[in-house]
Amino acid sequence: MKKYCFGVDIGGTSVKLGLFTCEGELLDKWEIPTAKADGGAAILTDVATSLEQKLSERNLTKEEFVGVGIGIPGPVSADGTVFECVNLGWGTTPVKAEMEKLIGLTTAVGNDANVAALGEQWQGGGKGFESSVMITLGTGVGGGVILNGEILAGANGAAGEIGHLYVNYEEEDLCNCGKPGCLEQYASATGIVKEAKRYLAAHDEPTSLRGVEPLSAKIICDAAKNGDSVAQKMVDQLGRYLAIACSHLSHVVDPEVFVIGGGVSKAGEILLDAIRRHYDPICMKAVKGKPFKLATLGNDAGIYGSAKMVLGK
Amino acid sequence: MKKYCFGVDIGGTSVKLGLFTCEGELLDKWEIPTAKADGGAAILTDVATSLEQKLSERNLTKEEFVGVGIGIPGPVSADGTVFECVNLGWGTTPVKAEMEKLIGLTTAVGNDANVAALGEQWQGGGKGFESSVMITLGTGVGGGVILNGEILAGANGAAGEIGHLYVNYEEEDLCNCGKPGCLEQYASATGIVKEAKRYLAAHDEPTSLRGVEPLSAKIICDAAKNGDSVAQKMVDQLGRYLAIACSHLSHVVDPEVFVIGGGVSKAGEILLDAIRRHYDPICMKAVKGKPFKLATLGNDAGIYGSAKMVLGK
Repeated sequence: MKKYCFGVDIGGTSVKLGLFTCEGELLDKWEIPTAKADGGAAILTDVATSLEQKLSERNLTKEEFVGVGIGIPGPVSADGTVFECVNLGWGTTPVKAEMEKLIGLTTAVGNDANVAALGEQWQGGGKGFESSVMITLGTGVGGGVILNGEILAGANGAAGEIGHLYVNYEEEDLCNCGKPGCLEQYASATGIVKEAKRYLAAHDEPTSLRGVEPLSAKIICDAAKNGDSVAQKMVDQLGRYLAIACSHLSHVVDPEVFVIGGGVSKAGEILLDAIRRHYDPICMKAVKGKPFKLATLGNDAGIYGSAKMVLGK
Repeated sequence: MKKYCFGVDIGGTSVKLGLFTCEGELLDKWEIPTAKADGGAAILTDVATSLEQKLSERNLTKEEFVGVGIGIPGPVSADGTVFECVNLGWGTTPVKAEMEKLIGLTTAVGNDANVAALGEQWQGGGKGFESSVMITLGTGVGGGVILNGEILAGANGAAGEIGHLYVNYEEEDLCNCGKPGCLEQYASATGIVKEAKRYLAAHDEPTSLRGVEPLSAKIICDAAKNGDSVAQKMVDQLGRYLAIACSHLSHVVDPEVFVIGGGVSKAGEILLDAIRRHYDPICMKAVKGKPFKLATLGNDAGIYGSAKMVLGK
C-alpha cells in the first residue's frame, strides 16, 4: 500500500526536501546545502543519501512510497533530462534516470517554476481548481500553467514562461533574456524599483519615495498603502502590466484561476486590486471576472508541487 | 471492428459532412443546408437523417463506426453542451446527448475553430506534430491550440481565442468583442482593408491601392507581391501583429508548429515571411525559430477535425 512520497526542490543555494502523505499532508521538511562544486556532481547523490536517512529515521520502507518528485531551476525535457542548468553547474543531466538508479524509487522531474505552480494548485492558493496559472514575482518573474491537474511543459520546456510575455511593445531596453518589453522588466522586484526610479527622474511630484536608498518593491508597495500618490501610480502600472499578461494567458489557455506568488505578492490585496482593475477592460466577455488569489505556500510550493508531480492526477 | 467515423461541421449556411476511415482517409463528403428556422430546431435531426442515408447508401452498419464528431460555431462545454450559438439560432442545447439519442453513435462536440485546428494537425499543415497552434484569417480571426493531439478548450471554452489577443496596446477603436487592440482588428480580411484605408488617408505616397473600390485583402497582398511599397508596408504590419500574437502563444503554450489558414492565408509565403521576420526578435531563445506552415485542408479542416475528435488520441 503506497502511502507517501517525497518532494524535492533543488535551488542554487539549498535543496528543500519534504515527506508527504499521498493526500497532501506535509509530515516533515528539511534542507541540505546544494553541492555546487565539480559542476554539481554530488547534488543528486546528496539528495538520495538524505532521503535514505529520512526513511531510516522514520522506519519507513520504499514499498510504502509512490516515488520522488524533483524541481530543477532550468528547462526539463519530457523524459526528465536537464540540458543545461547554469545555477547548479549542470550540463546535460538525465535527472530522472540517475535518481531512479540512486534511490530505486520512481522519479518525476520538472521545472521549478512549473512545479511551484502545481503545488499551489494542489494545496495552496489554487486549491479546488482543475486549471490555474501561477505568476511568481520575485527577483525575476516565473510562472506555470496547470491544465487538468498537470503541468503544461511545452515543446521546448518553455510553456508558462510568463516573465517573458511581451507586455510593452514600445520598450527599447532589453530584458536579461535578450528581447525588449518582457513582463519581468516591470513586475520583478528589481523591475519595480527600476520603473519607480525612471518615474522619479522624469517627474518632480513630492513623494516619500524620493531619495530613499536603497529603494525596494516593499517600500513602494507600503508607501502606496499609506496614500503616497506616486507609489500608487507605480502599483497601478504594475497591475496594468500584470493584467496585460493575464489577458494573454486567458485568451490562450482560459484557466479557472490566477495565483500570484513570490516576495512582491506580500503586498497583498492592493496588488490584486490593481490587476483586477485593469484586467476586465482588456478581456473578451467569456474570460472576464476570473478570480485572482494570493499564493499561500511560500517557499514550500516547490516541495508540494514536486510531490504532486510524482503522485500524478 | 471499428473502421469508420463521421466528421460534421455545422456552419451558419450549410452543414459539411464527411465519411472517414479511422486512418484519416476522407472517403466521401457532402453538404446539406443549415435549417435555421424555428431556432435551428431541425438542424441535428437533419444531420442524423443525412448520416443514416449515407450508411444505407454505402451498406455500412453502425457497429463499424467509432462515432460522430461535430463542430459548432460557438463555445462548447466539456460535456458537449452549447450554451448559446447565435449563428444557428440555438440557446442552451445538449448537442452530444441529443445527437447520441438521434443516431445511436458516440458523439463528440467541439468549437469549430478548435476542431479545424485539430484537423490541420491530423492531416493538414500540422501533420507529424504533437502540439500546434492554428490561426485562421478569414472574415474574423479564429484559432485553436492542440496539445498532445487534443483540443485545449479552457475553463469557459475560450482557450485559443487568438483573434482576441491584445496586440496593440495603443488602439482606441473597439473590436466586435467590445475591447480594443484585438488581433482580429488587424489580421481579419476586413481588418486588413481597414488598416490600409487608414494608411491611405494619412499618407500621400503613390500606390496602386489608392482609389481601388472595393479594396480587399487579396488585392493588397497581390500588390505587395508586385512590388507596391505601400502594400508591402501593410503586409509587413500584418506580419508584425501576427508575430506578436505568436510570441504570446509561444511563451504560454510553446507549440511545435504554427499553422496559418483561412482566406487571407492564400497570400502564401509573402505572409509567412512577414511573420517570421518579426517573430524571432520578440521571442526568448527557447522559442525562436518555430516553423510557420500554411494550412492545407481548406474548408475541409472542420470535418477532418470533427472526425479526429471522436477518434481520440
